[in-house]
Amino acid sequence: MVIVMERKATEEQIERVTERLVADGCAVHRSTGVERTVLGVIGENVVDERDYELLDGVKEVLRITHPYKLSARAFKPEGTQVRVGEVEIGSNAVVVIAGPCSVENENQINAAAEGLHRIGTRIMRGGAFKPRSSPHSFQGLGEEGLRMLHECARRRGMYVASEITDHTLIPLFLEYSDILQVGARNMQNFNLLRELGKIRKPVLLKRGMSATIEELLLAADYIMTGGNHQIILCERGIRTFETYTRNTLDLSAIPVVKKLSHLPIIVDPSHATGRRDKVAPMARAAVAAGADGLIIEVHPDPDHALSDGAQSLRLEQFEQLMKELELISAAVGRRIDR
Amino acid sequence: MVIVMERKATEEQIERVTERLVADGCAVHRSTGVERTVLGVIGENVVDERDYELLDGVKEVLRITHPYKLSARAFKPEGTQVRVGEVEIGSNAVVVIAGPCSVENENQINAAAEGLHRIGTRIMRGGAFKPRSSPHSFQGLGEEGLRMLHECARRRGMYVASEITDHTLIPLFLEYSDILQVGARNMQNFNLLRELGKIRKPVLLKRGMSATIEELLLAADYIMTGGNHQIILCERGIRTFETYTRNTLDLSAIPVVKKLSHLPIIVDPSHATGRRDKVAPMARAAVAAGADGLIIEVHPDPDHALSDGAQSLRLEQFEQLMKELELISAAVGRRIDR
Amino acid sequence: MVIVMERKATEEQIERVTERLVADGCAVHRSTGVERTVLGVIGENVVDERDYELLDGVKEVLRITHPYKLSARAFKPEGTQVRVGEVEIGSNAVVVIAGPCSVENENQINAAAEGLHRIGTRIMRGGAFKPRSSPHSFQGLGEEGLRMLHECARRRGMYVASEITDHTLIPLFLEYSDILQVGARNMQNFNLLRELGKIRKPVLLKRGMSATIEELLLAADYIMTGGNHQIILCERGIRTFETYTRNTLDLSAIPVVKKLSHLPIIVDPSHATGRRDKVAPMARAAVAAGADGLIIEVHPDPDHALSDGAQSLRLEQFEQLMKELELISAAVGRRIDR
Amino acid sequence: MVIVMERKATEEQIERVTERLVADGCAVHRSTGVERTVLGVIGENVVDERDYELLDGVKEVLRITHPYKLSARAFKPEGTQVRVGEVEIGSNAVVVIAGPCSVENENQINAAAEGLHRIGTRIMRGGAFKPRSSPHSFQGLGEEGLRMLHECARRRGMYVASEITDHTLIPLFLEYSDILQVGARNMQNFNLLRELGKIRKPVLLKRGMSATIEELLLAADYIMTGGNHQIILCERGIRTFETYTRNTLDLSAIPVVKKLSHLPIIVDPSHATGRRDKVAPMARAAVAAGADGLIIEVHPDPDHALSDGAQSLRLEQFEQLMKELELISAAVGRRIDR
Repeated sequence: MVIVMERKATEEQIERVTERLVADGCAVHRSTGVERTVLGVIGENVVDERDYELLDGVKEVLRITHPYKLSARAFKPEGTQVRVGEVEIGSNAVVVIAGPCSVENENQINAAAEGLHRIGTRIMRGGAFKPRSSPHSFQGLGEEGLRMLHECARRRGMYVASEITDHTLIPLFLEYSDILQVGARNMQNFNLLRELGKIRKPVLLKRGMSATIEELLLAADYIMTGGNHQIILCERGIRTFETYTRNTLDLSAIPVVKKLSHLPIIVDPSHATGRRDKVAPMARAAVAAGADGLIIEVHPDPDHALSDGAQSLRLEQFEQLMKELELISAAVGRRIDR
Repeated sequence: MVIVMERKATEEQIERVTERLVADGCAVHRSTGVERTVLGVIGENVVDERDYELLDGVKEVLRITHPYKLSARAFKPEGTQVRVGEVEIGSNAVVVIAGPCSVENENQINAAAEGLHRIGTRIMRGGAFKPRSSPHSFQGLGEEGLRMLHECARRRGMYVASEITDHTLIPLFLEYSDILQVGARNMQNFNLLRELGKIRKPVLLKRGMSATIEELLLAADYIMTGGNHQIILCERGIRTFETYTRNTLDLSAIPVVKKLSHLPIIVDPSHATGRRDKVAPMARAAVAAGADGLIIEVHPDPDHALSDGAQSLRLEQFEQLMKELELISAAVGRRIDR
Repeated sequence: MVIVMERKATEEQIERVTERLVADGCAVHRSTGVERTVLGVIGENVVDERDYELLDGVKEVLRITHPYKLSARAFKPEGTQVRVGEVEIGSNAVVVIAGPCSVENENQINAAAEGLHRIGTRIMRGGAFKPRSSPHSFQGLGEEGLRMLHECARRRGMYVASEITDHTLIPLFLEYSDILQVGARNMQNFNLLRELGKIRKPVLLKRGMSATIEELLLAADYIMTGGNHQIILCERGIRTFETYTRNTLDLSAIPVVKKLSHLPIIVDPSHATGRRDKVAPMARAAVAAGADGLIIEVHPDPDHALSDGAQSLRLEQFEQLMKELELISAAVGRRIDR
Repeated sequence: MVIVMERKATEEQIERVTERLVADGCAVHRSTGVERTVLGVIGENVVDERDYELLDGVKEVLRITHPYKLSARAFKPEGTQVRVGEVEIGSNAVVVIAGPCSVENENQINAAAEGLHRIGTRIMRGGAFKPRSSPHSFQGLGEEGLRMLHECARRRGMYVASEITDHTLIPLFLEYSDILQVGARNMQNFNLLRELGKIRKPVLLKRGMSATIEELLLAADYIMTGGNHQIILCERGIRTFETYTRNTLDLSAIPVVKKLSHLPIIVDPSHATGRRDKVAPMARAAVAAGADGLIIEVHPDPDHALSDGAQSLRLEQFEQLMKELELISAAVGRRIDR
């Protein structure tokens, strides 16, 4: 933390700031210039910089250390690979997780699994507990749905990723899901994050609709503090004033996260755009920008999907997209994991 | 829902859209103009309008009913009053809830309660379970803190408002808190909302940092669907590009909510601005704009607060503000509840 | 500027940064800690801090001086009053500028002037050159409209405020307008700002729809650099994700600007909300928050207005509002200028 | 336009709305349902829908036609190619415009031109009239700079793109620039747009920092109304709450614009990200998403650039990027124009 004093700050004011810093357990390095005094502060982790901004004679307080620690690149400069069975996310291979928005019934999930497996998918997604904005919408099949998904995927050698909405569901997910997905609305559900820190399974952490990249990394820190370091970050669009797309996919988050953190980052083009015909261009763009993977909604019959059919690809569209992604991956020196 | 067809839409395309609507359980009213055909749709509550946007020949799909029902003004045109003991929120009297950000210890909470009571506060706030962005920050005293708050407030005849962060805590809060506060980060924690719908105590529902007013009303609907209609809405600032204030307090939400909904709305100027010296002007502005109440952070010794001291008023500042608010209330034909 | 070096920065890297700073004309104050080295930089006004962020070994670069100079509070701690004839903006009196969106014809502007004068308005607004988002909308009466407005206002002893959209129009406005208004879309039209710096008449500078407060003050600096210090700032809403109001009125900008700058600030509740029934609550809130004035759209017959009728008050609504504003002004220790 | 009446709207209210519509020159198609009446309106181009929202008995007014006309895809379904000499923007070839932020002096611009030409650049950019946020920053060399740029580029057979900031400069730009660039801050400088409509040279129109896609297309309409249909749209980042990048590059605007409009769209990754190391990933992503071209800042010696050096690529970095873009272009079935 650096505290910049006003030009006209008195010696007394500077001393009062210094004393408070020392009382707060910080070390202070004072540098007096012709124009103004600047205080360099060490050990300010538990201090709220705004407290100092309000003291007399203080012009500005600047934070110089990032608040996230465990997710920072410095913590593991070589980068993290998250293992899901034999699949490795964060390696040279780009991993595509695919499947329907919701598990709807045996037939649907079977048809989806069949098609996805044929196209080469290794991790299948599907929602059983659905957080919906309206209480009147379809809320998911719950435990039964999760079991169905697990069974259909496993039978074909695929892994499972599904969204967990409450910490009391962790035992169930440990049994039936290989990746525990935290949705955008739960990115700051700290009770859930804390409990996920205690398990030893990969967590897919989606960026909140209005979360800064720093807040995303802090949320990862919450989980990592408990000892679970198997975290996959996910960009899924942020809320802006533009209304033609559901959210604005922030692809520049990819190179930014790559620099700030050692954790792998994937992209969800389905939720970001909300429209089927925008999914493929954004999926290609994400891989071109350096994403470690994608999570895409694919449905065997989107016209009759119970949720988010409008943003789900048909199986044949997904197959076509996978071919395009192979070309893009090669162009950036990577390959698609199949 | 209104479906506008393309100028060049074929008869076949129009029929296909109509058939699908009927299959989805909707009634369709077709009106054929010289230029284009428009389909008026009734009974579209469970339909995702995006599904129709993707059909051939469709130009645009317009939603004409709001998705929230129970919180809509039409549901109770005369307006809702929420009763907390003898205090009524949503009446002519403007209610000011005040207290420290966190319950820190016996001395602090006692000093706060003493001062607040003297100034005329009738509902005291205080956090025991704190949702903090960083896992390394003070996380609150938990159950012990909530009990302390309850005891200190009750002894002086004040009611208690405290934030609940998890549905498993509901029994505890039913015992010790008169208002159960849902924080901005939990506005779309649907498990929590659903459980709060089952109790019969007032819920203070804060608008999420990036939630639209419509989403706020939908969140209220989640609670009301369970039968609990005692809901107080709270504007506390939205996230924008401006960085001089922590959030941008959206005071125009007050007249908007007043028109759209029958629920009372209060304002939290402390979290919105994040700075003590901005709290009083925004509190005055909120009352001038028609707010039914305020929730303000007040601390007996903000310089040593364990959280958010920078945005907490000192007791004497709060006393001064209450005098100003009395004048403003009178100017808009209301009074301050004391 | 403060440059924070990486923990592992080499002596060579530190020297290279220092050399470049010196070459850029800056003075450097080095402070070496146990953990890291921090360089305090003086005289960095012409330097782009991002250049230094990219140098090897640099962790972060922090700007410690604000880029605006002339509009900063420090430049004139006692505050600026802008004089328009006998009216003083920035004094204890709250000044209300009112009038129709556009000058439409002799009858309309006469009726408006008549009514406004009767209610006690001292500065009348009216647009003659209209910047419209669509090329097909009414674009204003131009020079003729400006003259009409001037004549109608002067005849009743009122002053005139009108929007200037191009620097080539300055001579015309010098003759017919007492306040030259710069619209939100032109806040960064630097050619216009520069030319307005050369005149000696009050300029009303509206905040751009997505301009930060810092950019607003920099725009004021553009004008002041030319020697014209008679500037009135105006908050008129910023663009956010919320769609129920046209823009989100950022009333916290009032106390923020009051602290950062010596210039007076007024508020435009008409453009911010875009709806007649939201204008009065927001006008009251602005005065309660400490605004030095308001600019409000009032039309003798809004139902037949050629532009923005939906956000214009009727004369009788304006009269009622003025009464309410008198009460609010008194509550904050000010009065309404009439 | 569709006007949805309240359930309880009286026959009288419906008639009053209808009468006003007819008086406004619209045709009305009434459809009375069991629940409510809906009025379909034709010919509403000059009507402000908000006027109708405020009438008694009206629940909602929905716009069903987009306000832009000439830039709409329907106006020219096959797509527009903009010709700059022999270069065609909007064809199968992806066009990369490159050059320094500002023309600084003979040596710099010569070195830039030399390097760019060697790498295969066909259109060179360079700013002579610089719109800078601060009045104290370098403002460009003006006319002399434009001439220098023109001479250096032409000598090597390259075309010129440069930013025009004021309509009075049009004659100068007609002589020395092949593409007239309108910067983000001038996207709604309607005087400038109107005058550019009268010329017959390509205009590169950048999306404003907080402009919706609809507003961008309306700005294009302003120019096209004058008869100049040679317009290239440019996405350059929008303002959001995220601060790690200067702006958030909205790549989903590419497929959206492709659907809504017939005009070509290119991307400026340099201004969007503001950091050199983010330019290449975003450039690759733009091409993968379907952009018709790029405009990139390249400087022979960015460390000593007078403006925006931090976001400028070195010549060798640009050369490397061009190779990567060739691979990406091929992967999406296009080629890089060289």
